[in-house]
Amino acid sequence: LEKIYIHSAFEENKMKYRFENVLGSFIIDENKGIVGKGTKGKVVSAGKIKDTLKFFKDKQYFREFYSRNLSLTKKQVKKSVTEDNLIMQTISSLQELDKTLNLFGRRLSEWYALTCPEVVNKVDDYERLVDFVLSKSCSGACKELKVKEEMGADLPERDLTQMKSLAASMREMFLLREKHENYLEEVMKTYCPNLLELAGVTIGARLLDIGKGLKRLAMLPASTIQLLGAEKALFRHLRGGGRSPKYGILFAHQLVQGAQRKEKGKVARVLADKLSLCSRLDYFKGEFKAKEYRKELEARFG
Amino acid sequence: LEKIYIHSAFEENKMKYRFENVLGSFIIDENKGIVGKGTKGKVVSAGKIKDTLKFFKDKQYFREFYSRNLSLTKKQVKKSVTEDNLIMQTISSLQELDKTLNLFGRRLSEWYALTCPEVVNKVDDYERLVDFVLSKSCSGACKELKVKEEMGADLPERDLTQMKSLAASMREMFLLREKHENYLEEVMKTYCPNLLELAGVTIGARLLDIGKGLKRLAMLPASTIQLLGAEKALFRHLRGGGRSPKYGILFAHQLVQGAQRKEKGKVARVLADKLSLCSRLDYFKGEFKAKEYRKELEARFG
Repeated sequence: LEKIYIHSAFEENKMKYRFENVLGSFIIDENKGIVGKGTKGKVVSAGKIKDTLKFFKDKQYFREFYSRNLSLTKKQVKKSVTEDNLIMQTISSLQELDKTLNLFGRRLSEWYALTCPEVVNKVDDYERLVDFVLSKSCSGACKELKVKEEMGADLPERDLTQMKSLAASMREMFLLREKHENYLEEVMKTYCPNLLELAGVTIGARLLDIGKGLKRLAMLPASTIQLLGAEKALFRHLRGGGRSPKYGILFAHQLVQGAQRKEKGKVARVLADKLSLCSRLDYFKGEFKAKEYRKELEARFG
Repeated sequence: LEKIYIHSAFEENKMKYRFENVLGSFIIDENKGIVGKGTKGKVVSAGKIKDTLKFFKDKQYFREFYSRNLSLTKKQVKKSVTEDNLIMQTISSLQELDKTLNLFGRRLSEWYALTCPEVVNKVDDYERLVDFVLSKSCSGACKELKVKEEMGADLPERDLTQMKSLAASMREMFLLREKHENYLEEVMKTYCPNLLELAGVTIGARLLDIGKGLKRLAMLPASTIQLLGAEKALFRHLRGGGRSPKYGILFAHQLVQGAQRKEKGKVARVLADKLSLCSRLDYFKGEFKAKEYRKELEARFG
């Protein structure tokens, strides 16, 4: 049993108390023990609770205690699913999709290069490669990309079908990626609008993921937010094996990206500061201030 | 230029030779150099080739040499695509699919557990889980699996859609996996029927992949085939850091799997022996003997 929810009650006439717990409301006689159920009367005083609890040592209550508590716990579990969980699952799924698309993309390039190396060399974006594999023959693709086609083997349709199926599966994943992203944006728009506005979908969601939820993120100091995602480098530094990291996942933020090399650390620090404010505004349901913050930062560093 | 294909020719009248190379057939006078083209006459003797080649130092031939050689090389590249390449790509893709399905399966379990933990706990096969997520509501699935449903959160359709899309993408991948496997079997049936029969689709293809093609596999000693896929353990052993491995990917073969623990190494050794014979039969287009081998092994160890 994780928790036992006990409320106490007390009735002051003739040594009888009313006591409420998870099983219901009981009338208790100080000498005879539990004498019946009832909902009238004043609740037992805090000092009496310990004395009263012994009456429930009777084995007949054990099973009921167990099942009532279990169902209460289950209800709590049910209620404990928040937007945090959904966002964390979605952003993890998104990252796994990216990883997989890279893996499959490399495979498709290598495979398709057997029949059409010229196109594979020209196209460095997997999404575009998928389109070519699915929609065109090799010679058609070569024509569009203005390359002379010579080196690839002429494979029968049976062999090409396998590559096309792989490409089709990849296209499905690209669509799924987009769906995930739109969904994330939608959820975050109501759950953490400030964070969304200043950090963007991916970085915002990843902050929630690494920070383990909005509540904890709001409690973290800005300096920690600045280094979320750079744990490895940070601990290496703390063990004395390297320079202190200046940014974690914030490195991918467009403000940090756009800054000069020397300034990146500074921008990340100020950005983390504002993001920390944003997460607090979101957690405590404050106003929408992220737009101002963004303008401020852009004016200073943009 | 990767290779220069030079055939030499020689004509024995009045110090004139015929010399053939990638550019065509030339008549060469030993004193005046190249005097014209022609296809008649005997080919230059091997000893004279070196003397003759100097005439082609003339710059006018450089460009032509380059482009002719390039096109010849391209033709060779084109011809160099064999079943080996296709099988290796397919089996690699298959393994990457398996890896990804595991990754996505774990994600889906975790995600779907937010709304329906009871079903996730009961179903340990990702393919079945995908079916449940796609075809049924949580309560429907719970009914079928005879579990009381209590703990999951009631999520709106918007949230469920994301999980369903992930599940749909996974189903696509399961289908692709099947396609790949059927295709592999079809290709191997004509390319290496003996290996296919004795090793099975997956192990056969992986042997070709790790052995880098049928030709090389046929040249490998049986003891190497026995340890393909156990390179890490083998080198650890050679450096003195562990026991010698007894099997690599052959461990997954049903004969080895079915053997008693003490016998596994022995079965792997005999199996590798027969597989080596199979790969040689296949490479040199020998008879189909794998069925006999299989029966022999099954009678001995089955």
